Amino acid sequence: MPDPRPRARDLNITIGALPTGSSNAITDVSGVRVGHTTCIEGDSIRTGVTAILPHSRNLFIEKVVAAVHVINGYSKSLGLSQIVETGTIETPILLTSTLNVWRAADALVTWMAERNEGLISVNPIVGECNDARLNDILCRSIGPSHVHEALAKASEGAIEEGNVGAGTGMTGFGWKGGIGTSSRVTNGFTVGILVLTNTGDPAELRIDGFPFGRHVVPGPSTTSDKGSIMILLATDAPLTARQLRRLTSRCALGLGRIGGTAGHGSGDFVIGFTTAATVTADWELMIPEGGFIAENKLSPLFSAAVDATEEAILNSILKADTLTGRDGNTRHGIPLDRVRELLQS
Amino acid sequence: MPDPRPRARDLNITIGALPTGSSNAITDVSGVRVGHTTCIEGDSIRTGVTAILPHSRNLFIEKVVAAVHVINGYSKSLGLSQIVETGTIETPILLTSTLNVWRAADALVTWMAERNEGLISVNPIVGECNDARLNDILCRSIGPSHVHEALAKASEGAIEEGNVGAGTGMTGFGWKGGIGTSSRVTNGFTVGILVLTNTGDPAELRIDGFPFGRHVVPGPSTTSDKGSIMILLATDAPLTARQLRRLTSRCALGLGRIGGTAGHGSGDFVIGFTTAATVTADWELMIPEGGFIAENKLSPLFSAAVDATEEAILNSILKADTLTGRDGNTRHGIPLDRVRELLQS
Amino acid sequence: MPDPRPRARDLNITIGALPTGSSNAITDVSGVRVGHTTCIEGDSIRTGVTAILPHSRNLFIEKVVAAVHVINGYSKSLGLSQIVETGTIETPILLTSTLNVWRAADALVTWMAERNEGLISVNPIVGECNDARLNDILCRSIGPSHVHEALAKASEGAIEEGNVGAGTGMTGFGWKGGIGTSSRVTNGFTVGILVLTNTGDPAELRIDGFPFGRHVVPGPSTTSDKGSIMILLATDAPLTARQLRRLTSRCALGLGRIGGTAGHGSGDFVIGFTTAATVTADWELMIPEGGFIAENKLSPLFSAAVDATEEAILNSILKADTLTGRDGNTRHGIPLDRVRELLQS
Amino acid sequence: MPDPRPRARDLNITIGALPTGSSNAITDVSGVRVGHTTCIEGDSIRTGVTAILPHSRNLFIEKVVAAVHVINGYSKSLGLSQIVETGTIETPILLTSTLNVWRAADALVTWMAERNEGLISVNPIVGECNDARLNDILCRSIGPSHVHEALAKASEGAIEEGNVGAGTGMTGFGWKGGIGTSSRVTNGFTVGILVLTNTGDPAELRIDGFPFGRHVVPGPSTTSDKGSIMILLATDAPLTARQLRRLTSRCALGLGRIGGTAGHGSGDFVIGFTTAATVTADWELMIPEGGFIAENKLSPLFSAAVDATEEAILNSILKADTLTGRDGNTRHGIPLDRVRELLQS
Repeated sequence: MPDPRPRARDLNITIGALPTGSSNAITDVSGVRVGHTTCIEGDSIRTGVTAILPHSRNLFIEKVVAAVHVINGYSKSLGLSQIVETGTIETPILLTSTLNVWRAADALVTWMAERNEGLISVNPIVGECNDARLNDILCRSIGPSHVHEALAKASEGAIEEGNVGAGTGMTGFGWKGGIGTSSRVTNGFTVGILVLTNTGDPAELRIDGFPFGRHVVPGPSTTSDKGSIMILLATDAPLTARQLRRLTSRCALGLGRIGGTAGHGSGDFVIGFTTAATVTADWELMIPEGGFIAENKLSPLFSAAVDATEEAILNSILKADTLTGRDGNTRHGIPLDRVRELLQS
Repeated sequence: MPDPRPRARDLNITIGALPTGSSNAITDVSGVRVGHTTCIEGDSIRTGVTAILPHSRNLFIEKVVAAVHVINGYSKSLGLSQIVETGTIETPILLTSTLNVWRAADALVTWMAERNEGLISVNPIVGECNDARLNDILCRSIGPSHVHEALAKASEGAIEEGNVGAGTGMTGFGWKGGIGTSSRVTNGFTVGILVLTNTGDPAELRIDGFPFGRHVVPGPSTTSDKGSIMILLATDAPLTARQLRRLTSRCALGLGRIGGTAGHGSGDFVIGFTTAATVTADWELMIPEGGFIAENKLSPLFSAAVDATEEAILNSILKADTLTGRDGNTRHGIPLDRVRELLQS
Repeated sequence: MPDPRPRARDLNITIGALPTGSSNAITDVSGVRVGHTTCIEGDSIRTGVTAILPHSRNLFIEKVVAAVHVINGYSKSLGLSQIVETGTIETPILLTSTLNVWRAADALVTWMAERNEGLISVNPIVGECNDARLNDILCRSIGPSHVHEALAKASEGAIEEGNVGAGTGMTGFGWKGGIGTSSRVTNGFTVGILVLTNTGDPAELRIDGFPFGRHVVPGPSTTSDKGSIMILLATDAPLTARQLRRLTSRCALGLGRIGGTAGHGSGDFVIGFTTAATVTADWELMIPEGGFIAENKLSPLFSAAVDATEEAILNSILKADTLTGRDGNTRHGIPLDRVRELLQS
Repeated sequence: MPDPRPRARDLNITIGALPTGSSNAITDVSGVRVGHTTCIEGDSIRTGVTAILPHSRNLFIEKVVAAVHVINGYSKSLGLSQIVETGTIETPILLTSTLNVWRAADALVTWMAERNEGLISVNPIVGECNDARLNDILCRSIGPSHVHEALAKASEGAIEEGNVGAGTGMTGFGWKGGIGTSSRVTNGFTVGILVLTNTGDPAELRIDGFPFGRHVVPGPSTTSDKGSIMILLATDAPLTARQLRRLTSRCALGLGRIGGTAGHGSGDFVIGFTTAATVTADWELMIPEGGFIAENKLSPLFSAAVDATEEAILNSILKADTLTGRDGNTRHGIPLDRVRELLQS
């Protein structure tokens, strides 16, 4: 078995000054779990679904305070209006491929209904990127079993990255992309990021500021603005929905740092939640002990979000190995020797 | 066969001073078609789907300029982010019951794919209200055949209103609600509105300003803020997406006039499009002959949108007859004798 | 001395079912004070300034939770971006005539600096409507003394309405307009509204639903969309900024009810604050005892806001007497005999 | 006389792959002019005003299509609501120090009134950052003469950068900051950026990706989130207001690249306009010959905006020399020898 591909830190690449959580993952926010179902079938199915559970209790009766920031709204992602209006999320969050979002949402509703008798309304959250380069996307191969498997397998601790779950068929800055994660700890609070990377102009890729894409790009047929990136932010900092919206918007700055330009056709959303503030089934906001963070104490969290976003995207590319799919199309894993060579020169 | 229930104009109720189009319907905007599939099965299926087609050509390769206004975002309606970002709609618009939106969207994608070879990304638009009072909503009974039937049956001219299509199981101000439509003509342009009414506090209902709800309310179990209203606006006025957003936002004022207060749980969206400005598959905006309307010529259109919204909602209630559904629950048609008596006194 | 003009309730016009506060004014929210400076000089100065103080302590070190809703953004009103971002107001709110906003803001900064040593940044809030029909607006006659006088005179209890303060030169639905106020009490909470009315098409005026404008309009030269309305909302309900934004947005529905259509050139803003949630100089949110209102308890407050907005606008017109100003232009007070006659028929 | 401080390109720092315009300045967009008034008086006045004129004709009767993007809304900048609503700018844009914005706006109204007889409403645009560290800000030393001088001196061609105009008293990443500019040309269109830099955590500064702030930081008392940055974008690409809003939002990514994290108290706005689409006094949109750019041709402009923003900010710091002001406070020019040494190693 080959050595696993490295994360950024394995290459001694350290983004920013803040320390990471123990797994350097979104799951460093206590209670957050992540599960993947990877669908690789035959020559042309290269897709999957990734589930993020904010906590292990019933989310419908213990909603989490949440917010959304739209970097570029060219996206079919579902459930955002109600997050904006109510400041809450009441289901797990799914990520999948573009044309699977509705089937995934429907399967998630079934899953919620099984856990909440008499359910007549629920707002499933499903984000997406387009894996049509490697995957026969119109086939819409994600069904209830894949969704329920990802939910069932969700666990705490380290997270698989790269070609896994929703990341299976994705592309990052022309290289193979996919799932990546990172976290930061500041003032006793953790900010965790999980990304589904499917965006980026190869020539623009910067690795911790180094203009990698000026030196190395993959072959042709990779430059396109038809990507997307979904960024999920979790924190245990006690924030109101308004504060959380401020925090999620900073992820755009991390996307900028690694070289993102949010092309016309890139659906770039940030969805954030805090585990430190929940809302009951009767819509009562449970005030965190000690109240909410003072507004002028937010800046360190902003830095944490920027750094963790940059590193999560970087991980999503470093960890993704070469994959061939539909019509023999291939996305190459970023060449690690060139990364090592250029970054350490 | 009983006489059909009247529209507002049949009762000599005339909202505002502007003239209507020939059918007093959203279809007065040339090219717009509407189709309904009504699902009434057994004791507890009381739902349906309504399709609105902005024009009869391929919407994916001839998108229409579009905009969205959120009155209250407690809603599962789909496809709005991309309208906001790109200012276009590229599929027919569907309306259905809350928990059917994802199945309806998936069916719409199939329908689009059949008409666009090689489709790998498309943004279906589906609006919803919650018909759980009369309908076994969790059953999610809307499948591809219902969607495709509504699309196939879509036609120009007069539109069925009340308990039809998506309106089948809805409630308006405590009475039976559903589909309603109206239009106005001003300066040679038509503004058409179609609503799916499922909102309103019975005591607040005003009929052309008359406080009907202070005099007559249905029985108990009708006062709830768990409604919603979807408002679709069509026009042939040449508007940019920004101008169209301004126009759609005025529909809130028409909702206010009839007594709407947009309760917490009411998902109240306006989706608007103009047939006078299209965008090609290559994303080029076709400039209308004569350009776009001057900004300071918009106000008459605003009045048209307000008036037509008020009248469309009124029609959606007047036209809806008593219906019994799930668990024997009944919504009563607004008593026409009391309407006549009170409005004509 | 002539009898004062009546408020709506003096004419037995009762909007909605909820009870009012004791003064039926924004000042029914405990601690809120209002002061006016009216400037009527010579033939052509017909303007003024109105100050609203959320509480009687130092607002810079005890900010109030606040929110904004834009109905139509054609306006020069100042200070809104920071309200949206931070969810707070840290100065009194001023209303004045369009071209006076910057001078009024500058005077308000001076006033704040006198009360806060070492002040280097502060966000004054100033709303405006355009009184150019009666007032020599370019003269910009509002200076620091007028602003400071309005602030000094601010008091609790009943509020002068009509041609007073910022309302001096305004127009409402073609009639003389100006300042109006109203309040509602529900579930132990008060919602107070103060409006500066300078908007409306005469033919569209509805008085408690009665289409007054179809029967009586003022003479020519009154139909214009170049109006505006500023709506201030105060409450003692414990709301987060996000909840307060939801509440302020409902005022649009009240504007719709009285016949507003928010014409192109009408700058229609709602600025809301709650006295029940304050933020310290160190930006710490003071949690109200008992926490914030449950989200699904907001609907009665929404109704209160709609009703109080409708009645405040009505009061702003009823209370405003005929006034002649610049170039001999006259705005007539709405003829009370016709109001009585038509409303009581 | 000492050598002038270098711009980025003088140090062989080249951001991105796109070519610049001839002056590498916002004025590369044909017709755009910039003028500065610098106020350095005694020990404690270190401020100024910068004027940007989109074209040399009367802006009130030939408005430019415009848009705004708010990165962080903690700001007193004026005039933004009307840009959002109408998609136009009808005055020159001023930049100045925070507490001068209202006086500057009032002076701009006077200037506009002198050029437009009968003016009764106009929407001045004034952006701000807080120069209180070096400047006695409460003094509000900017008067009409300073504003009118900046407008009168506005010229095409190369622009003074650094400690000039509004940039006089500003701070960038702990070093002396101020005015900077840059431009890019792509597909025959120019995108020009002018920034007023007063933001940034010293440790976060990246120079073309190199983590300068990890190696060199100024002394203490420089780390604060109380900065701000105003970013002005000009282009001659024919864009609708909606497209322009998309373009302006990309500047956030450029801010991210240089190390910005948009701290709580940083008022970070982007104001953009296109000279290729104007609106008449009668609010008619003049359609550019050839229409508007296809939506999927926007991505190269996005890259241009990101690159030019990064370089403009860099220029604003490189060009700003050490300055001492109020209370003997000093901001040091970034040490050029260290920049050269570290960037060329």
